[in-house]
Amino acid sequence: MKRIAVLTSGGDAPGMNAAIRAVVRNGIYHGLHVFGVYRGYTGLIQGDFKELSVGSVGDVIQRGGTILYSARCDEFRTEEGRQQAVEQLRKHQIDGLITIGGDGTFQGAKKLTELGFPTIGVPGTIDNDINGTDYTIGFDTAINTVIDAIDRIRDTATSHERTYIVEVMGRDAGDIALLAGLAGGAESILIPEVNSSLEEIVARLKHGADRGKKHSIIIVAEGVGSAVDIGRQVQKATGFETRITVLGHVQRGGTPTAFDRVLASRMGAKAVDLLLSGKKDMMVAIRNNEVLGIDFDEASGQKHHLDLSNHHLASILSI
Amino acid sequence: MKRIAVLTSGGDAPGMNAAIRAVVRNGIYHGLHVFGVYRGYTGLIQGDFKELSVGSVGDVIQRGGTILYSARCDEFRTEEGRQQAVEQLRKHQIDGLITIGGDGTFQGAKKLTELGFPTIGVPGTIDNDINGTDYTIGFDTAINTVIDAIDRIRDTATSHERTYIVEVMGRDAGDIALLAGLAGGAESILIPEVNSSLEEIVARLKHGADRGKKHSIIIVAEGVGSAVDIGRQVQKATGFETRITVLGHVQRGGTPTAFDRVLASRMGAKAVDLLLSGKKDMMVAIRNNEVLGIDFDEASGQKHHLDLSNHHLASILSI
Amino acid sequence: MKRIAVLTSGGDAPGMNAAIRAVVRNGIYHGLHVFGVYRGYTGLIQGDFKELSVGSVGDVIQRGGTILYSARCDEFRTEEGRQQAVEQLRKHQIDGLITIGGDGTFQGAKKLTELGFPTIGVPGTIDNDINGTDYTIGFDTAINTVIDAIDRIRDTATSHERTYIVEVMGRDAGDIALLAGLAGGAESILIPEVNSSLEEIVARLKHGADRGKKHSIIIVAEGVGSAVDIGRQVQKATGFETRITVLGHVQRGGTPTAFDRVLASRMGAKAVDLLLSGKKDMMVAIRNNEVLGIDFDEASGQKHHLDLSNHHLASILSI
Amino acid sequence: MKRIAVLTSGGDAPGMNAAIRAVVRNGIYHGLHVFGVYRGYTGLIQGDFKELSVGSVGDVIQRGGTILYSARCDEFRTEEGRQQAVEQLRKHQIDGLITIGGDGTFQGAKKLTELGFPTIGVPGTIDNDINGTDYTIGFDTAINTVIDAIDRIRDTATSHERTYIVEVMGRDAGDIALLAGLAGGAESILIPEVNSSLEEIVARLKHGADRGKKHSIIIVAEGVGSAVDIGRQVQKATGFETRITVLGHVQRGGTPTAFDRVLASRMGAKAVDLLLSGKKDMMVAIRNNEVLGIDFDEASGQKHHLDLSNHHLASILSI
Repeated sequence: MKRIAVLTSGGDAPGMNAAIRAVVRNGIYHGLHVFGVYRGYTGLIQGDFKELSVGSVGDVIQRGGTILYSARCDEFRTEEGRQQAVEQLRKHQIDGLITIGGDGTFQGAKKLTELGFPTIGVPGTIDNDINGTDYTIGFDTAINTVIDAIDRIRDTATSHERTYIVEVMGRDAGDIALLAGLAGGAESILIPEVNSSLEEIVARLKHGADRGKKHSIIIVAEGVGSAVDIGRQVQKATGFETRITVLGHVQRGGTPTAFDRVLASRMGAKAVDLLLSGKKDMMVAIRNNEVLGIDFDEASGQKHHLDLSNHHLASILSI
Repeated sequence: MKRIAVLTSGGDAPGMNAAIRAVVRNGIYHGLHVFGVYRGYTGLIQGDFKELSVGSVGDVIQRGGTILYSARCDEFRTEEGRQQAVEQLRKHQIDGLITIGGDGTFQGAKKLTELGFPTIGVPGTIDNDINGTDYTIGFDTAINTVIDAIDRIRDTATSHERTYIVEVMGRDAGDIALLAGLAGGAESILIPEVNSSLEEIVARLKHGADRGKKHSIIIVAEGVGSAVDIGRQVQKATGFETRITVLGHVQRGGTPTAFDRVLASRMGAKAVDLLLSGKKDMMVAIRNNEVLGIDFDEASGQKHHLDLSNHHLASILSI
Repeated sequence: MKRIAVLTSGGDAPGMNAAIRAVVRNGIYHGLHVFGVYRGYTGLIQGDFKELSVGSVGDVIQRGGTILYSARCDEFRTEEGRQQAVEQLRKHQIDGLITIGGDGTFQGAKKLTELGFPTIGVPGTIDNDINGTDYTIGFDTAINTVIDAIDRIRDTATSHERTYIVEVMGRDAGDIALLAGLAGGAESILIPEVNSSLEEIVARLKHGADRGKKHSIIIVAEGVGSAVDIGRQVQKATGFETRITVLGHVQRGGTPTAFDRVLASRMGAKAVDLLLSGKKDMMVAIRNNEVLGIDFDEASGQKHHLDLSNHHLASILSI
Repeated sequence: MKRIAVLTSGGDAPGMNAAIRAVVRNGIYHGLHVFGVYRGYTGLIQGDFKELSVGSVGDVIQRGGTILYSARCDEFRTEEGRQQAVEQLRKHQIDGLITIGGDGTFQGAKKLTELGFPTIGVPGTIDNDINGTDYTIGFDTAINTVIDAIDRIRDTATSHERTYIVEVMGRDAGDIALLAGLAGGAESILIPEVNSSLEEIVARLKHGADRGKKHSIIIVAEGVGSAVDIGRQVQKATGFETRITVLGHVQRGGTPTAFDRVLASRMGAKAVDLLLSGKKDMMVAIRNNEVLGIDFDEASGQKHHLDLSNHHLASILSI
């Protein structure tokens, strides 16, 4: 193994740059030449490669986004597109590829492995919805962004009952909503994994109002419904004023937290180590604080598990 | 003048607590007894008064919200309600009242003055929409909150054209949108004071895309329209993906900035000085860095002026 | 078990309030009366107890410091003092005590258990220097505070070689320096657990300068030496300008991160669960993402373990 | 006027990049070619020029530091060095130069004007110590950085008296210490402009302790003395524990605040406007919210004025 490449794909996640830096520097430390592929699989097909020096990843550890850019790539979903990608990799004499992204990214990476090209994935997505790893890069930053918003709303001190609905990311996975809701002290947390009836929500709001709460915060994962719709229903059912916040892509950016930088540094370095030891068809994961490689099949084949005991805990603590 | 009272009313604004602290401590420094009135005009009518000590406003200068709470009060809009308020003030032997809030607050304060009760207003509102003062307390914090959100969105680095629409507060005044848009480098700033056609917006977006911009940000004051509606129109007209952020009450909270704390400290102290020198029927204002008192009529009678040269500047700088 | 009490002791740590909130609300949820003891063991001896309601811990989850205050208490180190403490607990009919703090706190707690009083400890200290738990409450916030400082220094862009020395907390444990140094991309990380010669440090600095680095950052745990002294030595040995930052108690404060709030919520709730199930003489710990109780002897008897593989990783990634 | 150049010099200040962006884009808007000079006067002498496009200053408005780098330059202090600088400017057919920096920067700029080369200065320094302008770029960000540190210290809640000494930048000017001290609620503010005896400081500390304050914060400008020395004296005189924070270059970095970005945008654009209207030998200033040009002699000849009424106000409000 002499030359490796790295790309980012899918939605941005804070910490991707720290992971790229770790790939580049750990690679160079081990005598490799490391190439950046720009714009994800699009750049892979088009041959948009550039060798990265130690200095090229200086002062990026603290930056949100990805210096390699990310892109969607419909072409890569065709066999022809993937063949072209492998040809580009061969043409540039690349011996192994590291892909940083989410589930879609790894499905692509797996296809490359099937075509005989050694590939290792690194889980970078704010959604934390990858099976087999306790955390994904960017998740910790995203929930800190959400609780910063909740804290600001919490400052508001009216003397009449008001309900705030905060919509956060998570189409299929409630991780952001659940952890940010627990950390933010939200009164209700609506996630795809748990059915919550309007009656329950209303009962909690009224209970809070009865004991003198000046405001209640409902956090809702986008997969459950829109804040606007839920706000209307709640207002109709309770008579309380509702106010809406939709954070949107604010959650994808920002300086990565220490947790995400350390995670990204360890995972990026591990990806290089795995390639060097001849591994392929694997995703880097963190389990019980240990960074290790697991088979792609384990990562992308199964449903990601969310620990619902935190949902119960949140409901006890926000009474 | 031996006993004065202070209340907050209307929407919360970061820095209100710093203003309360300044009223209390400057009052006590000058030998006065200072009373807090809780829940705005509601507490005034109901006699919810409490004497505030030097220590009672310790460790509040950095807190968002208001330790005196705020409230709407329909009763105060009736003459009977206001008569009751004056009776409560007399009953508690209060010689002067300081009200911290926005235009609605001052209209109420003016009515008290008309009933013979000396009142001084302090402009505390994130909207900056009070005539006669260069800045209101909370505005600087709010625009910093907005640019933090814009910065995070800006981190996102896709390689296909994407447009972000960020909806901010401002029903009638575009101050938050304009200054945050200028500071955030937004491509388009939609405010009530300036008519912007969809054609112009689209032209700017396409111009940006042509020169290789990876994203464009449109900031829109809520008075102009909803981010959802504008996003739909833009997407239809350009074919670019649009993504929505609605900040809502996130903008009302947060630790006040240094600017807002200094402004609030100076204004709160000045309000006491004005009462002590026999003034009434006045609002504290800052003009050209000088804190002074102006007549309520000047503050609440006229339309607040927004410097549109910044709108032109923003359009030049975000080309 | 009908009545329990909770206190905080030792240095403040962000998240202590989230832990207190969890103790109070989980306790009340299980039908207990929960009392706060003010000013740590001092208040325990003096009988400074107050029953805490659900509402009394509202809006504290996001606050740094501790609403119960903390204190040193020499009297508690005497057997007489501890006897008085137990008498106060009995007098107030308390059936179990939860102490939040560091190693000194738990040594005290253990003595209470020896006197027959059921006690459970919760690890709250920014230093992360408690054996048997992967994390302590406050550590994650502290390292984020440190990297925020490092990021700001990193912005500085001079064209002549300059070395920044940042002194952080950690008399015996290098956890803060190591994790913040790894996350901040520091060129050298000086911790009590690893001997670093001046020669090595200088060699790294010169190596960085040779490859064109515009600045180097050395992070030093206070247990290794003062930033001022190390700065002088480095300047003398390299000729590079050095600049000093000493963060001090800035590291003890701030809004807790999501990680610390979730950890504190889980640990506080677990402490109540342990008492309810008849446990005593235990500390709550987190291991492999699971919150559980371990014997005090395991927590306070042995040396805390620091994973030095991160030190090696940091040296590779900051080349 | 067809080609202009811009450089940054002296200590970094957050907002310098926003000023560069404004110079570049307003210049291009008016049909000019704009060149960046790298590493301040050093690059000027060495001819380190590069034309800047509209896109080259994209995504920099939020970045601390300066993309053009800064440097000290002893050579520029010689007449020979300055002659070379003018030759380089002529060689690159530059018609006007904009220099962003502090007083030292402007003394250099003035010399260029004396050699017949049109030069306009833009005040960029965190110290706010330039005469003739109400604010310099970077000052607002720096004081917000300082109050963030003070807020964190303030969270610490011990029950025994403790005094925190925070040392901030300001060799000759107390602006940062004064405004941050006022905004942070510091008990004592030690600045070069005001003599404070140890007796007064001690008296204030004891007064605070008597009325039950749990902590006192002394903020000291570096020009007055070191935090370590002052801490020792205070501890000796009061018996209170003292704790030290030295912020150092942390104050020079960070994302610029909205205030600094707006100021920098307006000032950078104005500098171009001044050159275009044939002005030279001037510094851009902001006075009473108006951005205008003033003679270099007014800016650099006289002592900067600090409004000491804020010092008096701070002492009243922190009683």
